[in-house]
Amino acid sequence: MIITISREFGSGGRELARRLAEELNIEYYDREIVEELAKHTAFSEEYLHEITSKRIHPLYPITIGRHFRYLKNHAYEHSQHIFLEQSRLLKELAEKSDCVIVGRCADVVLKDYKPIRIFTYADMDSKIARCRIKGGNEEHYTDQEMKQFILGMDKERAEYHQYYTGQVWGQKEHYDLCINTSHRSMRELAHKLAGIYSSEC
Amino acid sequence: MIITISREFGSGGRELARRLAEELNIEYYDREIVEELAKHTAFSEEYLHEITSKRIHPLYPITIGRHFRYLKNHAYEHSQHIFLEQSRLLKELAEKSDCVIVGRCADVVLKDYKPIRIFTYADMDSKIARCRIKGGNEEHYTDQEMKQFILGMDKERAEYHQYYTGQVWGQKEHYDLCINTSHRSMRELAHKLAGIYSSEC
Repeated sequence: MIITISREFGSGGRELARRLAEELNIEYYDREIVEELAKHTAFSEEYLHEITSKRIHPLYPITIGRHFRYLKNHAYEHSQHIFLEQSRLLKELAEKSDCVIVGRCADVVLKDYKPIRIFTYADMDSKIARCRIKGGNEEHYTDQEMKQFILGMDKERAEYHQYYTGQVWGQKEHYDLCINTSHRSMRELAHKLAGIYSSEC
Repeated sequence: MIITISREFGSGGRELARRLAEELNIEYYDREIVEELAKHTAFSEEYLHEITSKRIHPLYPITIGRHFRYLKNHAYEHSQHIFLEQSRLLKELAEKSDCVIVGRCADVVLKDYKPIRIFTYADMDSKIARCRIKGGNEEHYTDQEMKQFILGMDKERAEYHQYYTGQVWGQKEHYDLCINTSHRSMRELAHKLAGIYSSEC
């Protein structure tokens, strides 16, 4: 059993994934994937995190005199290469054992393994509240700044997903279960979901 | 506990609702509501079913000579009146006991009761297959005809819902849980959902 969790920023999908894996006593993969990629490539974890969490655009052609020039954009090439490498790694992990995987287009990359595809979302107030509790660099943002930050993160996720899978991120038709996590306890939700899926482990 | 189930045509939402109510041993309301409305009004169940399942448009103004005329459209007035009557009835039922209610904008009408709002959807192949099993007038349709029929029914539901609630029907943000029922057994799904919600009864 492979469970993939895609999530709006601030909707608690990562916590849900971790707790669900604990409840089901199966593997949980999130940042572990970046660590693994770092071992297999020359790139740092920070750089890998950057190019696997947003769509990297190639530079647009620019006109110099009468000639078109394309400026070489290494990040773009790297991101293409890393996506393939990451997909290979996801399949390796899926072969190895039951697991819960967060993000990384795993719902589409692993479609041959018929994963249970979960999407978590929440209303903006609830996401802002969750981000404040989590702390981090953004904790001093005003509500308006926090909202813009959250929307920006989701825009990046949506673009990355659309680019690599051709599917609209967050459109319910592409998932088995979409869960509104507004004002819900992830601990309780994970426990209930585990009740649903434990028989399928 | 009030559970409302909204559903794409052919996605099995009605069966899920009935089975879920059985599992939880709580009331289940669907056509019972039309029967009740018939008792309280002068209208037949068939007519009530018709005007509570699609948006009834008033006649557009037509020009005769130089004058605008509005032709009287009783169905339009009835539908407005019946929606209010139905909403009053839904609240009465919600006051009385825990229940599962199918359709009828109950998710919005009963929002003060904080219902658990479920939406069921499925891919077209699965919905066509479910409609064939159910039989009825449409069972001899070709796949293409069946698809058009299903899309037409959903268009009516969407328009009705939008008109009376101002909300986009089927948009995941308006529900607590959206379930993809493609190729799922409603019996099994109801049993699993009951496991989730039984502690909240």
